[in-house]
Amino acid sequence: MSVSFCKSARAFNLINRSMPTGVLNAITDVAGLSVGHVTLRDGNRQTGVTAILPHQGNLFRQKVPAAAHVINGFGKSAGLMQVNELGCLETPIVLTNTLAVGTAFNALVRHAVAGNPDIGRGTGTVNPLVFECNDGFLNDIQAMCIREGDIDAAIANANNSTGVFEQGAVGVGTGMSCFGFKGGIGSASRVIELDGNSYQFGTLVLSNFGRPGDFILPDGRRVVPPKVRDVPEKGSVIIIMATDIPLDHRQLDRVAKRGGAGLARMGAYWGNGSGDIALAMTTGWTISHDEDRDIVPVMMLNENRIDRLFRAAAETTVEAVLNSMTFAPATTGFRGNWRPGLADWLHGSDT
Amino acid sequence: MSVSFCKSARAFNLINRSMPTGVLNAITDVAGLSVGHVTLRDGNRQTGVTAILPHQGNLFRQKVPAAAHVINGFGKSAGLMQVNELGCLETPIVLTNTLAVGTAFNALVRHAVAGNPDIGRGTGTVNPLVFECNDGFLNDIQAMCIREGDIDAAIANANNSTGVFEQGAVGVGTGMSCFGFKGGIGSASRVIELDGNSYQFGTLVLSNFGRPGDFILPDGRRVVPPKVRDVPEKGSVIIIMATDIPLDHRQLDRVAKRGGAGLARMGAYWGNGSGDIALAMTTGWTISHDEDRDIVPVMMLNENRIDRLFRAAAETTVEAVLNSMTFAPATTGFRGNWRPGLADWLHGSDT
Amino acid sequence: MSVSFCKSARAFNLINRSMPTGVLNAITDVAGLSVGHVTLRDGNRQTGVTAILPHQGNLFRQKVPAAAHVINGFGKSAGLMQVNELGCLETPIVLTNTLAVGTAFNALVRHAVAGNPDIGRGTGTVNPLVFECNDGFLNDIQAMCIREGDIDAAIANANNSTGVFEQGAVGVGTGMSCFGFKGGIGSASRVIELDGNSYQFGTLVLSNFGRPGDFILPDGRRVVPPKVRDVPEKGSVIIIMATDIPLDHRQLDRVAKRGGAGLARMGAYWGNGSGDIALAMTTGWTISHDEDRDIVPVMMLNENRIDRLFRAAAETTVEAVLNSMTFAPATTGFRGNWRPGLADWLHGSDT
Amino acid sequence: MSVSFCKSARAFNLINRSMPTGVLNAITDVAGLSVGHVTLRDGNRQTGVTAILPHQGNLFRQKVPAAAHVINGFGKSAGLMQVNELGCLETPIVLTNTLAVGTAFNALVRHAVAGNPDIGRGTGTVNPLVFECNDGFLNDIQAMCIREGDIDAAIANANNSTGVFEQGAVGVGTGMSCFGFKGGIGSASRVIELDGNSYQFGTLVLSNFGRPGDFILPDGRRVVPPKVRDVPEKGSVIIIMATDIPLDHRQLDRVAKRGGAGLARMGAYWGNGSGDIALAMTTGWTISHDEDRDIVPVMMLNENRIDRLFRAAAETTVEAVLNSMTFAPATTGFRGNWRPGLADWLHGSDT
Repeated sequence: MSVSFCKSARAFNLINRSMPTGVLNAITDVAGLSVGHVTLRDGNRQTGVTAILPHQGNLFRQKVPAAAHVINGFGKSAGLMQVNELGCLETPIVLTNTLAVGTAFNALVRHAVAGNPDIGRGTGTVNPLVFECNDGFLNDIQAMCIREGDIDAAIANANNSTGVFEQGAVGVGTGMSCFGFKGGIGSASRVIELDGNSYQFGTLVLSNFGRPGDFILPDGRRVVPPKVRDVPEKGSVIIIMATDIPLDHRQLDRVAKRGGAGLARMGAYWGNGSGDIALAMTTGWTISHDEDRDIVPVMMLNENRIDRLFRAAAETTVEAVLNSMTFAPATTGFRGNWRPGLADWLHGSDT
Repeated sequence: MSVSFCKSARAFNLINRSMPTGVLNAITDVAGLSVGHVTLRDGNRQTGVTAILPHQGNLFRQKVPAAAHVINGFGKSAGLMQVNELGCLETPIVLTNTLAVGTAFNALVRHAVAGNPDIGRGTGTVNPLVFECNDGFLNDIQAMCIREGDIDAAIANANNSTGVFEQGAVGVGTGMSCFGFKGGIGSASRVIELDGNSYQFGTLVLSNFGRPGDFILPDGRRVVPPKVRDVPEKGSVIIIMATDIPLDHRQLDRVAKRGGAGLARMGAYWGNGSGDIALAMTTGWTISHDEDRDIVPVMMLNENRIDRLFRAAAETTVEAVLNSMTFAPATTGFRGNWRPGLADWLHGSDT
Repeated sequence: MSVSFCKSARAFNLINRSMPTGVLNAITDVAGLSVGHVTLRDGNRQTGVTAILPHQGNLFRQKVPAAAHVINGFGKSAGLMQVNELGCLETPIVLTNTLAVGTAFNALVRHAVAGNPDIGRGTGTVNPLVFECNDGFLNDIQAMCIREGDIDAAIANANNSTGVFEQGAVGVGTGMSCFGFKGGIGSASRVIELDGNSYQFGTLVLSNFGRPGDFILPDGRRVVPPKVRDVPEKGSVIIIMATDIPLDHRQLDRVAKRGGAGLARMGAYWGNGSGDIALAMTTGWTISHDEDRDIVPVMMLNENRIDRLFRAAAETTVEAVLNSMTFAPATTGFRGNWRPGLADWLHGSDT
Repeated sequence: MSVSFCKSARAFNLINRSMPTGVLNAITDVAGLSVGHVTLRDGNRQTGVTAILPHQGNLFRQKVPAAAHVINGFGKSAGLMQVNELGCLETPIVLTNTLAVGTAFNALVRHAVAGNPDIGRGTGTVNPLVFECNDGFLNDIQAMCIREGDIDAAIANANNSTGVFEQGAVGVGTGMSCFGFKGGIGSASRVIELDGNSYQFGTLVLSNFGRPGDFILPDGRRVVPPKVRDVPEKGSVIIIMATDIPLDHRQLDRVAKRGGAGLARMGAYWGNGSGDIALAMTTGWTISHDEDRDIVPVMMLNENRIDRLFRAAAETTVEAVLNSMTFAPATTGFRGNWRPGLADWLHGSDT
């Protein structure tokens, strides 16, 4: 078995009848947004970090409107409460393994203080935003091998100008599993026309959910992974959506929620032990930490057009999950635990 | 075109790989629960009422643990706030058209007072529980033709000892549409083994949602209805789940939420204009209005087993929606508006 | 005992150290907003209707941004779910007794259809917004004496150009009780300076909550009503806030929530049997039902200034509740049940 | 000025008309619950850790039913999402300063793994429960001086058999401020009779909220601290409630919410920048991680008795906040910042 079959879900003809995609068909189609990985791949250690920068400025100073939606709350993500109270995020978004949330919290605090020495002194504190999935099947998660420097490096890596980033078993996706296959990082995007202008809607998922045997391809085929060890599901999935369409917090929450519809179409029912969390953000406007005006002009979407975003949210979630699988090769990790690659299965099913 | 092709989704071989069904494959597999219809079918008027009695006793005196989950809140259902504050319902559940909610509220008040003359005097008031969908395409909904007597009659009709009740274009389902086809009332059930005993889990849906062209059958086929008038979606769907498994309010809410997964599997993304509401209740214990004890023994499910109910919730929602369509004949209503029957389409597609 | 002692809480020197009030010290200081009453006072029948029109145009066409916050959900108010999903209201706000909610729903539907014949036909349905309290102590609530015409009349009465409206035992407040005294309708307002401009923040309450003996005046005095019949609390309180400061839905919800702080300062702890609901709305912008633009410019408050509104929300809730009591004379109603007037108690305590 | 005036709020005659207290008038009146502190007090560093063990067994194996209620979500507490999804907590409760949440997360993970080596391997991961307030006025919070060993020590210190623990400027309370005075740790309890048995209801608060000048004593006096530097409020308050009365998750959430009523009675309106969080838990039953039975018998409170708990929640919150102040001496910390002690003010006002 080999990595070479890995390619996008579209290359496997898994996606039909979608809205038009962006140029990259990735969350980085949203201008200014970047993604960085750090991958730790060494025998028992198959884990990592992925950072998302919504824009390239000072996020604490120019906060990004966002809403977090809990599809199923068996998870340890940090920072969601304040995102929903204030309607914005103010640090890079860090995705890592479950037991590294504390370390990511610390690193994000130091990162914010470095850029904003008034934090905790002349101004308030900072709200680190950390998402996690449990990669304990392929990764020795108890080893807690993620260091603060790994978080810093992932943030530093989120600086590419092309917007191209690796998908599959990379960054925080290194040790993840999905429906009994290898999962990880995937992305997709759609273009939405509003008032004669083209807007971008992009999604990045970290897939680590789904009971083997429940997986349904968009064409209706059920896919059972080979040689499944019957381990009860302890997965999770993180869905990060970004758009340059201006939305208010209520609208962002409504959009984020539709990530759950995408998951369900693949056969998930948001299992008890799965931390299924979606976050939606807009780069269409920002909130200045140092705003002088008392009343601030903003833009929002005509609610009668929001179905387009709901559809994009569901579609990109499906495609991003599929990409997270088709880009990920079969992987052997902790104690020899093994996950097959969906690309191999699809290649075999083609021939 | 004729009614004669109407039959269950299973009879059309649409359901595969499900958990075992109850004897009736309907919500009335939950012992003591009954369903009653009143159908108003007369030219421009294609509407009705469906009532569900969770048990055959005095519901105000023996309240039923329940949780309401709002999937998308573009709707006018009444009574949900108190259900979620107190964790129980205390009247029959009435489903009717959107503009008849007030009339149903009045009828439920009078029904409760008739059985409990202390309401509003020696004791508190009563919380009428009313769900609705907008049948304005096939029904002259502005006519507001539902009378309090129709509500009373639906409740009185919910008394059959066999548990068999009509599905499809009947009761409140008379004028509803689903994915551009005729929708209405559908039901399904599953059996769940716990501690060596068999428990029932049943769902009844009122289907009135879904954009034509989005509909996906469980086998992956997309079904586009013939001769669709391109009317923007203004639908809704009500999902009522019942079980004799004892659950607490938090668990009931978690179960109800999984109705949304069932909808998504059929192609829905919980559209902006759709009031998608799920209610789950248990007959496994009741709450006495006149309880003397300060501390009350109850039973609840081991949370580690709840995935079985999540699966049942999603599966029965899918099958109930399909039944609501396959049992409903093509219908012509208000101003000659017409909806095709899915059974006819399936019959044609078979031949 | 006589009505003549009734006057405002300020006239009794109960309010100190407040932010500046508006000209009327009432919710009608918000320009365009009007209040109308219908009072039914006849022996056993002590009840009524109060209607609030946020603006004088077509509310269905020009919807008003709003958020409903449930402080304690033992109540039957209608329409809150859609207000929170879509972030706006689209009918007059009607307050009436608990068992008249269905009748008010019907009247609001007919009122909306009369002004918008496309409802339920060319466009969607309408979301009636009805709040209630249980006046069953002083009013024969089982009689269900409110008619649709009473709702219509209250709406028609909400047309005064001066903004002055009666407080105390009037309209829906006719039969209400508060901390064992006569309660009812009260109002208060504050002026808030932003960007050099003066904005209005007004609150109207329907007070029907509080256990006798728990009542605390702002100066710390505990007030126990004379001759209290020890009836367990079955009250409720409705708090309607309006402002011309532009706020988004999340901000409106945050502001509405602070009504609960006002109640607590008076000795309430949001009792189990009390339906304590707050709604906040802004006239600072509207949402057009027929909006053509896909992206719409709006205004919102700089979040760093929101404490001023939180303070105004708490302060006006306290003062409005006090006004609802000091303006209400002692009242005898259903079966001779009697509530003393706070004005009489205060008058006596002064002398 | 001297520490010697510090004593309980009751010793200052601030509490009147309360329900009966427990023997210790502290959260440790709930049998089995213990509290431990680590205090770091050294010039610029005025901070610490407080740990609460709901029972003395393995918390991961015997989980404690709990609900977290967000009064105002400007805060960084960790673990709340899962507490509310699953209705229980499974680690010690750690309170520390805002920027130490990550370190506490790490320490709690290691503590749980040490006691449960199957975490992240044979079983799922663990949900660390960490609450925080920002002590940046008196403490050099940027220094991030809390170490994992401090968390461990606080947990180890939570083992006293007497239930007596220090209040005021101790543990996590070392550097906190409240209404411009020195705040910190306070506690109070009430006894509730049910079915002829005595149950305990206890509350511990970490007070760090309130604008100087807003503070109201229970007797109505407004208390303005001397020499207030006009720093905008960046406070927070954590309210931890425990009882041996069996409650389900919905009831626990309702009870926790009433902590907000207590805060409001003291003059708070849950300011924008304040993270005001309440958690309620019951030791009346536990949830076994390794439960064999599918259906489990539990106990719950008759809802008609819950007002007693609501009253206890509000009363103990008030008294615990007052104790957190009256037990805390005036303190000088970071960069010479200073907070007066309420005891000194009260002593002066007496004389």
